[in-house]
Amino acid sequence: MIRELADSPLYGIVNPESIVIFGASNKYTAMGTSLLASILSLGFPGPVYPVHLKEKEVLGLGAYASLEEIPDIPGLAIIVLPTGVVAEVLDACGKKGIRHAIIVSGGFVEVGEDGARLQEQIKDIAKKYGIRFLGPNCIGAVNTHGKLNATYFSYEQKPGFIGMASQSGSFITQMFAYLKKYGLGFSSGFSVGNEADIDIVDCLEYLGACPDTKVIGLYIESIRRGREFIEAARAISVKKPIVAYYVGGTDAGKKAGLSHTGSLAGPDAVYDGVFAQSGVIRARSMEELFDFCWCFGTCRLPAGKRVLIQTHSGGPGAVAADACARAGLTIPPVGKDTKTLLAPYLPSTGSVNNPVDFTFIKRNTDYLADIPDILVKDKGTDAMLMYMMMPRQLVLRAMEAFGITGDAALVESDKFIDEQAALLAKRILSADKTFVGFSYYTGENRFISSMYEHGAPVLPGPNRAARALGAMARYVDLKKKILSQG
Amino acid sequence: MIRELADSPLYGIVNPESIVIFGASNKYTAMGTSLLASILSLGFPGPVYPVHLKEKEVLGLGAYASLEEIPDIPGLAIIVLPTGVVAEVLDACGKKGIRHAIIVSGGFVEVGEDGARLQEQIKDIAKKYGIRFLGPNCIGAVNTHGKLNATYFSYEQKPGFIGMASQSGSFITQMFAYLKKYGLGFSSGFSVGNEADIDIVDCLEYLGACPDTKVIGLYIESIRRGREFIEAARAISVKKPIVAYYVGGTDAGKKAGLSHTGSLAGPDAVYDGVFAQSGVIRARSMEELFDFCWCFGTCRLPAGKRVLIQTHSGGPGAVAADACARAGLTIPPVGKDTKTLLAPYLPSTGSVNNPVDFTFIKRNTDYLADIPDILVKDKGTDAMLMYMMMPRQLVLRAMEAFGITGDAALVESDKFIDEQAALLAKRILSADKTFVGFSYYTGENRFISSMYEHGAPVLPGPNRAARALGAMARYVDLKKKILSQG
Repeated sequence: MIRELADSPLYGIVNPESIVIFGASNKYTAMGTSLLASILSLGFPGPVYPVHLKEKEVLGLGAYASLEEIPDIPGLAIIVLPTGVVAEVLDACGKKGIRHAIIVSGGFVEVGEDGARLQEQIKDIAKKYGIRFLGPNCIGAVNTHGKLNATYFSYEQKPGFIGMASQSGSFITQMFAYLKKYGLGFSSGFSVGNEADIDIVDCLEYLGACPDTKVIGLYIESIRRGREFIEAARAISVKKPIVAYYVGGTDAGKKAGLSHTGSLAGPDAVYDGVFAQSGVIRARSMEELFDFCWCFGTCRLPAGKRVLIQTHSGGPGAVAADACARAGLTIPPVGKDTKTLLAPYLPSTGSVNNPVDFTFIKRNTDYLADIPDILVKDKGTDAMLMYMMMPRQLVLRAMEAFGITGDAALVESDKFIDEQAALLAKRILSADKTFVGFSYYTGENRFISSMYEHGAPVLPGPNRAARALGAMARYVDLKKKILSQG
Repeated sequence: MIRELADSPLYGIVNPESIVIFGASNKYTAMGTSLLASILSLGFPGPVYPVHLKEKEVLGLGAYASLEEIPDIPGLAIIVLPTGVVAEVLDACGKKGIRHAIIVSGGFVEVGEDGARLQEQIKDIAKKYGIRFLGPNCIGAVNTHGKLNATYFSYEQKPGFIGMASQSGSFITQMFAYLKKYGLGFSSGFSVGNEADIDIVDCLEYLGACPDTKVIGLYIESIRRGREFIEAARAISVKKPIVAYYVGGTDAGKKAGLSHTGSLAGPDAVYDGVFAQSGVIRARSMEELFDFCWCFGTCRLPAGKRVLIQTHSGGPGAVAADACARAGLTIPPVGKDTKTLLAPYLPSTGSVNNPVDFTFIKRNTDYLADIPDILVKDKGTDAMLMYMMMPRQLVLRAMEAFGITGDAALVESDKFIDEQAALLAKRILSADKTFVGFSYYTGENRFISSMYEHGAPVLPGPNRAARALGAMARYVDLKKKILSQG
């Protein structure tokens, strides 16, 4: 276990003073060029030195014919070259005094015996010079708070709070756009590739110590250093939630992982045991992993398993209740005090059971303000799930009732939606209770996209929201258990 | 069981010649007004008569002070009035000769004993006149091909192929926008409410006979006519897939359903048995229900359980393989003939295992054309899952490689994306094999939204795609079993 962030071999990888890149050119379809374009577009503040045999300039930067010509010892080398020349370049990096590298190039252990030999060779070279490296066969790393995006997709959203380490590069880069849809982003993300040197345990330790990371996500096809993983995860998970998606649990998943990164997976039950022992919450998909991270990063932890559901639609309420029960949560009756406070808001067709179902509401603003204010104070429940639905057409119809039509109605309805979303987001984020929203609408709807912008968790659908609440409750239990074991 | 569509009590409900509506006014926030606005905006072709005591015109239509004054016997009465006057109005409808009604008003059995008595009263009135009605406490019905939208949300997409019957009105109306995101829509949709007369079994029979409906979706909190349900579903499911989402299986779900529509649910295992016996595929969420419907409505049925996965990203491929195995499918090795045909397209870092993983591809167009053409002919597999990912930034970088920049690049890249999507969609829809796409991108990405527009199934993420394939394979098995039982 590292003691502080700077002790991690990853510190130098994602916080370098300067970077040398091998394999970038002015050929835009080359992976190295894409990677350099990403570095430039996120605005890395230090010098970046492309090395190219022929080009004088690469993407507008002065290029160097060789590493020796660079008037600096770069903090990080990024290597995106054909497999055969990686060893030679890595050796030159060592000679130059470079101590951190990302080796994107593939063609090593994942392709068979010859590749495995080449991988041993680069490990030896690294060891000789004390170089710590990520990869090979990886897609790079990103530290959004430090403005370093050394991957070949551009990062186009705000820095986030999810720290991710992944045995698939796609689950770093291809998730940029996925997370952006929900107003989320990575703090740091590591594609570990073949883990010839730095592995997923190192990433876990880095993310555990990283102050920008509120929650850790792991995509796992297999863990090699099992004992170290458990040790690190147990130490970290009592302070910061860790969510893992593991796919090696079926024969098909195991085989796919083997040909992907050359690693061997174990049965589901073994990993379930490892995760439970380590305080790690297991997700069933990448979507679920990020759902869990979203809630962990934005909600208070629940004090228990009792959930209060607010809805104005019977079906979504019933689904939420059923999904909560399946996620190990309970839906107790609403307390007497809360019932009394709710009475003035309830129409004759409404119900003060749990789910609290308001059916068709006349004053939508009560649903978004007074009512959650009452429910959030309910003493008999630990968490609140609230159904949200504000299609523009309904707001426009309400505007028409006030005689506001045409363009004015469009402007006023957008203004109304934005205001309501801002107020509700504030309520959710400052609540004294775990408070999660859910909706079948997503970012295409202005109210929901506005909620995302304000950083409030509004999960897509009741089932996903309930599963996320269940994960939080499970985390609280696991954490208590680990702390009690000392 | 009905013999033909016109025998169904629902035929007159969603195919009326003319409509009388009670409860619409010029007050835009009133539910009845919203409902009339929806009828008008979808362009119902027949006459619509609003009845209103004071207004001479309602939403631009001539209004009538009473039913008697209408110079026609309307085919359908829609009642959106306070609970207390429903019986009286229904009686007037009977006297007028109206034989079909939708009673949207709530306040009946779902609110307790007094409501239950009122519900018995309207049942008696309906019986006296031979009126068949949907509701009360429902949200209406929609027949998009017939341009009737008698619900209070407007329907803004093309008519679709999913026929839905739901014990929650929200799962008709609030799903319009959800389905629109994926280029999908309803053929017909019924909110059954309290099922005082027409129930979910009647809806099932109607949708079974409806030529615009390719697949049937059911949202169920409880089935009352169990025997009739099984009989109808067994007869229909061998011709048309039926997907059901049932939420009464937990105590919490059961209680929520009880207060929602006053019905009692049964344990999960009972419903599992009923569904299996009836050939009905069970979904775990509304999202999954529509995923399954999407594939049933657009794909060939798989001949077996063997899946071939095409990917250029290791992680999504491994997830797809693992998820397929969990969904009861198999991932056999790629056949020798297919391997030979693929060889020229495979980079040194690619893999001809299954998933067939092309890693970083130089010619993206091969991935979308030649390669699926080869894989779809593979004799050793029954279904194909293909990973898709075409972010605009990568296409723009490729454009720059050809010297196309600025606005021209934007235009050209959109053109390229649209063309590629059109070609791939055609391949998928005309394939001789079950062919499902999957992507972490959705409609915000031009390639994917273009695929949706062409009607191709591109499911959100590998897990959902694998579950949908699993559902199709299960359906094939259930159908065989039912047919063999005669």
